[in-house]
Amino acid sequence: MTRRTARRTVLRITLPASADGVVPASTGSRADFVAVEEPLGIRVNGTALTMTMRTPGDDIELAAGFLAGEAVIRSAADISEIKLCDGTSCGHHDHDEMGNIADVALAPGITVAAAARRSFMTTSACGICGKTSIQDICALPEKALDADATRFAPAVLAALPDQLREAQRAFSRTGGLHAAALFTADGELLVVREDVGRHNAVDKVVGWALLDDRLPLAGHILLVSGRASFELAQKAVLAGIPLLAAISAPSSLAVDLAGEAGLTLVGFLRSPSMNVYAGAHRLRPATAR
Amino acid sequence: MTRRTARRTVLRITLPASADGVVPASTGSRADFVAVEEPLGIRVNGTALTMTMRTPGDDIELAAGFLAGEAVIRSAADISEIKLCDGTSCGHHDHDEMGNIADVALAPGITVAAAARRSFMTTSACGICGKTSIQDICALPEKALDADATRFAPAVLAALPDQLREAQRAFSRTGGLHAAALFTADGELLVVREDVGRHNAVDKVVGWALLDDRLPLAGHILLVSGRASFELAQKAVLAGIPLLAAISAPSSLAVDLAGEAGLTLVGFLRSPSMNVYAGAHRLRPATAR
Repeated sequence: MTRRTARRTVLRITLPASADGVVPASTGSRADFVAVEEPLGIRVNGTALTMTMRTPGDDIELAAGFLAGEAVIRSAADISEIKLCDGTSCGHHDHDEMGNIADVALAPGITVAAAARRSFMTTSACGICGKTSIQDICALPEKALDADATRFAPAVLAALPDQLREAQRAFSRTGGLHAAALFTADGELLVVREDVGRHNAVDKVVGWALLDDRLPLAGHILLVSGRASFELAQKAVLAGIPLLAAISAPSSLAVDLAGEAGLTLVGFLRSPSMNVYAGAHRLRPATAR
Repeated sequence: MTRRTARRTVLRITLPASADGVVPASTGSRADFVAVEEPLGIRVNGTALTMTMRTPGDDIELAAGFLAGEAVIRSAADISEIKLCDGTSCGHHDHDEMGNIADVALAPGITVAAAARRSFMTTSACGICGKTSIQDICALPEKALDADATRFAPAVLAALPDQLREAQRAFSRTGGLHAAALFTADGELLVVREDVGRHNAVDKVVGWALLDDRLPLAGHILLVSGRASFELAQKAVLAGIPLLAAISAPSSLAVDLAGEAGLTLVGFLRSPSMNVYAGAHRLRPATAR
């Protein structure tokens, strides 16, 4: 049992319902659940690479997905081993007694330097450092998404947010976690991951798929619970996912990257409607299933 | 006029209202506004320090607030000059023709190294790198927040989200921007800033106050439109703000930092109620104004 949520004592204040205090104010302490946020260090071949504030759990998948999103690795074969460490001891199982360091050994011939067109001076919410154009900042996969001819039915997409919410209800009790989920083109839910950082939730999903040898994720749908930033669009492209859907708004750079990379980008996915910002050719007519 | 929002063509799909298609589906293109996301590089004394994905506008404040949040500077006097550059030319005014680099010259005697207990290998969403305890990761101000004896009325706090939403309506049209706002203890709105990154919105608010020589912000309230992470709590503490309020949930580490640093942390601020996670001694009884 990983510590996704933690109890904290909270003082709940409710103001009087009328200005004259006829319905009285109430104030009381109670235990409440909050989402756990803790730093995870990612070490590659013995060298500290980055640190991210994440919700513990699925940390091996998080490390694998992060490296896929940095274009350092492309399949499970590129990893020799990932262990979780606390600085003094290491283990292979997720998680509890283990610490907040993911220690990655890459397969022979795979190096960070080979992919390090990015400086890693950044992280996490950003995904970019010192680059000035989309082509510079985005390591694009060799196999363009354009080759993915899967078509998606709007009615299938419209049903996904309810599936995500249903799965989230089973996981957390805090209201404080972002979620990312992977679906087939038919709307079958494959995996859901939650995190205080939306980029981490996506890394955990991609890492799950990578470790299960499913990359590139042709024909799949990535759904995120919030907004679609440049960084999330970039992670989808690098994982070979042809359709990124967000419950909320995309950013300008996410739209632009989607257009350049051949990614279908759907925003404001709220049944019965949705906005398609790029790659609309992959969507069937609204009446189709 | 800074480019906070941009037009993109969007395909709007609405599914048929009934399964038999009696109310027909609709699909149509239209121009829609999305929040602009672009990289801003922050250069200090000629050396690239970090890059953040932000919404353009108030970039000088963003750079100043970022450096305050890293404990590099504490007042406007610590800055010799901040210019916006495009790589070839620089200027002092915000913004449009200027580029995506903020070039900061620190005052004599102020150095990044002096405050660089943090490695800057990280950013932006994280704010932490290579540290293992709250005391290590959080550069705390010399003057503890405990000394701030301001008391706040719950009725004043409950009225702030509406003020924030009202101010946001005036600014953006996208639904894709986080907001941060600074209020006096009496609930007077001083400044609102929006950004695709919530940390940037807070940096812009703190930078505004720093450049106006208002730091430390004793007796003030910082309100954020979303969740309260560790990083946002840290920025509040470093700016000397005694009360951080969030419309949504705090994380465990935000609660723990608030407790250690003497910060009053209010979450789920949704009139007529709110949760107080730390520093409840600063709140007046619910019936007081």
